[in-house]
Amino acid sequence: MRLLLEEIGVNARKAKWSLAGVPSGDRNRLLELSAAALESGADRILAENARDADAAEAASVKPALIDRLTLNAERIAGMAGGLRKVAALPDPVGEFFDTRTLPNGLIIGKKRVPLGVVAIIYESRPNVTSDAFGLCFKSGNAVILRGGKEAIRSNAAIVAVIRAALAKAGFDEDVIQLIPDTSRETAAALMKLNKYVDVLIPRGSASLIRSVTDNATIPTIETGVGNCHIYVDESADLSMAERIIVNAKVQRPGVCNACEKIVIHGAVADAFLPRIAAALSAHGVELRGDERAAGIAPAVSVITDPEEWFEEYLDLKIGIKISDSLDDAIRHIRAFTSGHSEAIITESYAASQRFLADIDAAAVYVNASTRFTDGEEFGLGAEIGISTQKLHARGPMGLRELTSYKYVVYGDGQIRG
Amino acid sequence: MRLLLEEIGVNARKAKWSLAGVPSGDRNRLLELSAAALESGADRILAENARDADAAEAASVKPALIDRLTLNAERIAGMAGGLRKVAALPDPVGEFFDTRTLPNGLIIGKKRVPLGVVAIIYESRPNVTSDAFGLCFKSGNAVILRGGKEAIRSNAAIVAVIRAALAKAGFDEDVIQLIPDTSRETAAALMKLNKYVDVLIPRGSASLIRSVTDNATIPTIETGVGNCHIYVDESADLSMAERIIVNAKVQRPGVCNACEKIVIHGAVADAFLPRIAAALSAHGVELRGDERAAGIAPAVSVITDPEEWFEEYLDLKIGIKISDSLDDAIRHIRAFTSGHSEAIITESYAASQRFLADIDAAAVYVNASTRFTDGEEFGLGAEIGISTQKLHARGPMGLRELTSYKYVVYGDGQIRG
Repeated sequence: MRLLLEEIGVNARKAKWSLAGVPSGDRNRLLELSAAALESGADRILAENARDADAAEAASVKPALIDRLTLNAERIAGMAGGLRKVAALPDPVGEFFDTRTLPNGLIIGKKRVPLGVVAIIYESRPNVTSDAFGLCFKSGNAVILRGGKEAIRSNAAIVAVIRAALAKAGFDEDVIQLIPDTSRETAAALMKLNKYVDVLIPRGSASLIRSVTDNATIPTIETGVGNCHIYVDESADLSMAERIIVNAKVQRPGVCNACEKIVIHGAVADAFLPRIAAALSAHGVELRGDERAAGIAPAVSVITDPEEWFEEYLDLKIGIKISDSLDDAIRHIRAFTSGHSEAIITESYAASQRFLADIDAAAVYVNASTRFTDGEEFGLGAEIGISTQKLHARGPMGLRELTSYKYVVYGDGQIRG
Repeated sequence: MRLLLEEIGVNARKAKWSLAGVPSGDRNRLLELSAAALESGADRILAENARDADAAEAASVKPALIDRLTLNAERIAGMAGGLRKVAALPDPVGEFFDTRTLPNGLIIGKKRVPLGVVAIIYESRPNVTSDAFGLCFKSGNAVILRGGKEAIRSNAAIVAVIRAALAKAGFDEDVIQLIPDTSRETAAALMKLNKYVDVLIPRGSASLIRSVTDNATIPTIETGVGNCHIYVDESADLSMAERIIVNAKVQRPGVCNACEKIVIHGAVADAFLPRIAAALSAHGVELRGDERAAGIAPAVSVITDPEEWFEEYLDLKIGIKISDSLDDAIRHIRAFTSGHSEAIITESYAASQRFLADIDAAAVYVNASTRFTDGEEFGLGAEIGISTQKLHARGPMGLRELTSYKYVVYGDGQIRG
């Protein structure tokens, strides 16, 4: 497998160079062609997807996971639509910025360039295969994909369709490569392929992210773990707080920007907690919390393991903490934040400013649902993931976050004195 | 040691929060006070430095290394001057940018924030201690320093002087912490302190950088390895080429932006190689190269191990390759670049554009010495290191590169539909 990975790395590096200087229009046309190819190749993709689903069922894979990996005509149309949408976005590559003339006459500026070779490790959803290709190709990067074993046939079919479109249009097919082996050992070896891969982006569960952090020698962007808090200040509009919390918890509980914990100011706990507990219970949400919360609302069961305050439930389940001050709420959130999205509901200007300044997360909100932390919602057009680290990019990452820059220096013989 | 590191991590996190909201003016005043404290504490620092130098001599450390670690009144004045200069630079923290109003009325923007806790692993030069503190403190970061064992007493004295200045001004002293233990095991444990440290910056030899890449679980910025090439095109002004190459090789051969390899177009090799060989030999430069180069200039000894083309000599030594075309030169440089700085000497517009587009390095030059890749020279005011990776920052890193951003979102009750 080492040898195969080495070969994939060499091919990716070659393919990355083949993209240098390809005009934006040509890259966009290829994305349109790939979209059409996905549509006309739908039967083949669906047939392979059905084999994946059968195998998953035979292996007693959980229904939720089978649902995530199952494609249909509509989902394939969605993948094609995604590629067309990326084609229509502005091209970040080639932008010149921060240009200036130095006292010695050197003209210096930064030119935006692709990252180079991007590797993506992801789990069950096969649409990530075409989405990731679209964003990487548009931004001039070659991509190495390592998807989950449940979707291997679907992913292989999607990649084959796209590679055929690339070959037909005269591109190096190796701008997209799928690692055929879905073993953990191969994933671990990929994480150490820093000779060829410029950046590694894991998309998936907390355990996948941790494995990448622990093992990768390639510069990595951590994505997607969200233990998001909503703090209800003593001055909050309680109807607004209820509306926002219910939305952030139940509209789509399995995603990283869903609300996992609420912190309620003690002064409004008696008024607000029974009300939000009833509203959440009506949506089938299990209520967990500290002893004070349980004392006020009997439906709340007590959290005894402190580690649970770190937990991302990804489920109809919420943790409730009562705090006696804004300071205490900030301390609590600082201690347990995953650095994804945190919100305050308040009518106090001072409290809103304190919260925005003192909470450090990819996105901090006043009076809005955490569910907005998303590339589409933030206007990036599409996203390759949501960064929860501070290096390079934070929050939703779109095309621009798939680029780097280089200094370009024009001289006329300057030497250093 | 694990326990000590854990304590250092906890302290650094606390100290990072203590800096949130400290106005720029107060941070600048502290830098001025620290500069004055270094000057008034010079005797104490020099006494400890003399003990380091004695110990190094007793341990038969190489004279070049002893020279690097030795301080004197002038070098201390330089350190103080560095802090005053950083105080005078513009403050990157707090900048709001990319602000916009979304269709649903949410107002969203990015706010520039400190990285948080920065760890720096470095080698012998004690001035890095105050330089790194100045840049990190100015940009609102707490810093954990792990210097080389040869300079441990000097570093401890510098840190003690700065901590005293911090305490006197009412700051949390733990915004600067020095790890007292200089063992490799502790360095390795620091690299895995991702619970507390946001970013790790290694400054030093290629083997240090490699050790960090291999072991760190903290997001890392690779710095400073420079196998820099200068390509002499067939259309080059040969006098300019000679002037630039001599400057880039001999002005300061031990630094990362010095020229290590030259590539000469075959059409000018007979005219240029004997001339540059004589000029470099006159400066005591050892000439290495391929067989063609050795055939033209007998002073050139042949490189037989291909790995040498990757080598950063950091010495009065240069490798010479003859290429028959710009394409071949680009292929060679792509194969052996360390991604630091690469230059072309040419009078051809087309060749200059090809080189700038096709060579991927932190800095690409036309008709200038690679020695300019430097924070001061590029106008950043100061630098914490030169990044040779593509994530986050590339080339010289100043104050701005020690920051991240967070999305700030102002709502009035928005929920996701």
